[in-house]
Amino acid sequence: MINKVFSAEQLDNKDPLALKVEAFSLPDDTIYLDGNSLGPLPKSAEARASEVVKQQWGQDLITSWNKHQWISLPQLVGDKIGNLVGAKNGQVICCDSISINLFKVLSAALKMRPGRKVIATTRGNFPTDIYMVQGLLELLGDEYSVRYIDESNIGAQLSDDIAVLMLTQVNFRTGLKLDMQSITALAHDKNILTLWDLAHSAGAFPVCLDDCDVDFAVGCTYKYLNGGPGAPAFIYVAERHQAQYKQPLSGWMGHSAPFSFSPDYAPDSTVKQNLCGTPGVIGMSILDAALDVFDGVSLKAIDEKSKKLQAFFIAEAKRAGVLDYFSLVSPPIDVRGSQLALAHDEAYAICQAWIAEGVIADFRAPNILRIGFAPLYLSFTNVEKAVQTLSDIMVEKRYENATFQQRQSVT
Amino acid sequence: MINKVFSAEQLDNKDPLALKVEAFSLPDDTIYLDGNSLGPLPKSAEARASEVVKQQWGQDLITSWNKHQWISLPQLVGDKIGNLVGAKNGQVICCDSISINLFKVLSAALKMRPGRKVIATTRGNFPTDIYMVQGLLELLGDEYSVRYIDESNIGAQLSDDIAVLMLTQVNFRTGLKLDMQSITALAHDKNILTLWDLAHSAGAFPVCLDDCDVDFAVGCTYKYLNGGPGAPAFIYVAERHQAQYKQPLSGWMGHSAPFSFSPDYAPDSTVKQNLCGTPGVIGMSILDAALDVFDGVSLKAIDEKSKKLQAFFIAEAKRAGVLDYFSLVSPPIDVRGSQLALAHDEAYAICQAWIAEGVIADFRAPNILRIGFAPLYLSFTNVEKAVQTLSDIMVEKRYENATFQQRQSVT
Repeated sequence: MINKVFSAEQLDNKDPLALKVEAFSLPDDTIYLDGNSLGPLPKSAEARASEVVKQQWGQDLITSWNKHQWISLPQLVGDKIGNLVGAKNGQVICCDSISINLFKVLSAALKMRPGRKVIATTRGNFPTDIYMVQGLLELLGDEYSVRYIDESNIGAQLSDDIAVLMLTQVNFRTGLKLDMQSITALAHDKNILTLWDLAHSAGAFPVCLDDCDVDFAVGCTYKYLNGGPGAPAFIYVAERHQAQYKQPLSGWMGHSAPFSFSPDYAPDSTVKQNLCGTPGVIGMSILDAALDVFDGVSLKAIDEKSKKLQAFFIAEAKRAGVLDYFSLVSPPIDVRGSQLALAHDEAYAICQAWIAEGVIADFRAPNILRIGFAPLYLSFTNVEKAVQTLSDIMVEKRYENATFQQRQSVT
Repeated sequence: MINKVFSAEQLDNKDPLALKVEAFSLPDDTIYLDGNSLGPLPKSAEARASEVVKQQWGQDLITSWNKHQWISLPQLVGDKIGNLVGAKNGQVICCDSISINLFKVLSAALKMRPGRKVIATTRGNFPTDIYMVQGLLELLGDEYSVRYIDESNIGAQLSDDIAVLMLTQVNFRTGLKLDMQSITALAHDKNILTLWDLAHSAGAFPVCLDDCDVDFAVGCTYKYLNGGPGAPAFIYVAERHQAQYKQPLSGWMGHSAPFSFSPDYAPDSTVKQNLCGTPGVIGMSILDAALDVFDGVSLKAIDEKSKKLQAFFIAEAKRAGVLDYFSLVSPPIDVRGSQLALAHDEAYAICQAWIAEGVIADFRAPNILRIGFAPLYLSFTNVEKAVQTLSDIMVEKRYENATFQQRQSVT
């Protein structure tokens, strides 16, 4: 057995983010390693949920569109998110879902490269990203096609028939993190537009959309941004593209003057053009408040703690012999997001057994135990206990008794 | 002065829906004539908001997708709405916004009439409906076009080059209510698919989608269904069309097996195909609970009370001389939804003055004072007082002093 360099308690004592856990309403006796699927409830969000329902909707009714700035929420929340993904104000807006936002950007991007008919993406991308491409291409007809490329050595696979390169920065299964800066530069060398999906990036580590010269991005807010189940997504359109950007889901909220009720659509000339129908005010208000947990915290500090938590997990897992049972399929820390993937043929049953003992993680088909590290509320003591529980499950084969329960978790 | 036949108090005393007001959390000293823009807060929704945030999200976290049936909400809520619009189970699903749902249905409908290239709608339709057509057509190219028809004598304007006829049943400005059954039949005579927007219909009066042989419908839930600001919309696909229906916003939730993470999109063969991204669980849960206020109430009873409230409003307005100041631009009661439109050059300022005195109604450009009648919480006494207040405003020209306040209300 390997001795510890520092105990979990020692590491918690010197953790500058240790007190942030108090900003969350967490269940007792649960260790939550699934914040990369659904972030937990911030206390600020809980308070705002009550406020928006009881006071704003219940008492102030229709006047809240102005009185409580409902009408400006998509932009206000967008700028807050922008601040967390390296985008200066006016380039991010909160709206709809990632899937729908992908459709908007892909349609607009194809129009901006009229001579090119190919969308490139990876086969290992999250399914909905690929499905949205397939749906758009079927609508547009045979002229257009999708090209699947490998995650490795992307630059060598880029050619000048590609209109847009759509990538998810962190692979949802393995955690592989792509180099946004270099890949974007390589794409631009071939005049390819880039579209980055930040589902597993936003709120987890520093993202530098402006500095990386990214063209477009989308992301969700219910994972590391803790916006609540199915919270609205976001969309980034670099300022330099906004004038020529034209997306086809041209609902009234993206009109340059929505309340003039004019007979023809005239797109707003800013990122606001991405609004379509009436926004879901309650969900977006809750998200707005949830983002306040990032006040006074740097993404760099979050990233540093995540790396320490992951290293501690691996060290503890080695020490306890857990890694004798699994293969660690995640890439090394410098090219990995805030998650670990352990492969095992019985990963599903093991995950169920772990959940039954109060450690919530995720299963991803076909054989991945997926472990998310969200540094705002996860402690080293949590990790130590999680590993010990997993060790007990493996040694005693408790997963053989895990009750089967169909699980449909939303990544 | 004309004498009253019945007093407001007498009418309230014999109103079978009088007690339903107790199901709502309404502000004191406010008369709400804007439920056709944003319905008020049902107490059941208030309780559910707290439950879904604190317990389901806060305590049960990711397990709630199964434990609290989050994953089935779109269908559960869809069937509840279906019950209110004359659709048997399995044909309505709750998702996204009206705007986005229009895009889905219009795209799918065009594919179902491959030889036809025209979408027909009225110029007076709600702007977002028209804008969504414009956005879709621009994406599809010059081959397709929109044809604007008049609201009157629609049958005579239908021709066999039209693929789909998109109509809003109740005009958002005037309240004109189209005859769904006869128009649908006339469209079918020419093999035209029909798409009805029920924004101002659902929850206001009996709608009989199945009996009228309607092909497709969409609707919102934040007006007469009281689902909350920006609550998710719904979509109806008649069972007979579901097998060949194919919509292009092909997100993972519309896949036949979303959690298999298979590489290619395979559409669900039911109305569920209309799901796209992860649904907004909090907003949809609140809507689910809000719909419970319709338990034990028939749409027929709601419609009957609405007609009485409207007749009482007009009688009182005549009696008090209010109608000497306005022109009543709404059509007669048998071809009108649950609203009245009064035209006046100063309608905006008058609306502001009315709001300042506790009566909330709506202004619609250029000159309409729009008055909604939602029988679940509106009493005859409310109407009487609203008219008296309006009369005072007009007689004393109080609107000349109404503070200007830019108002952006969401229809």
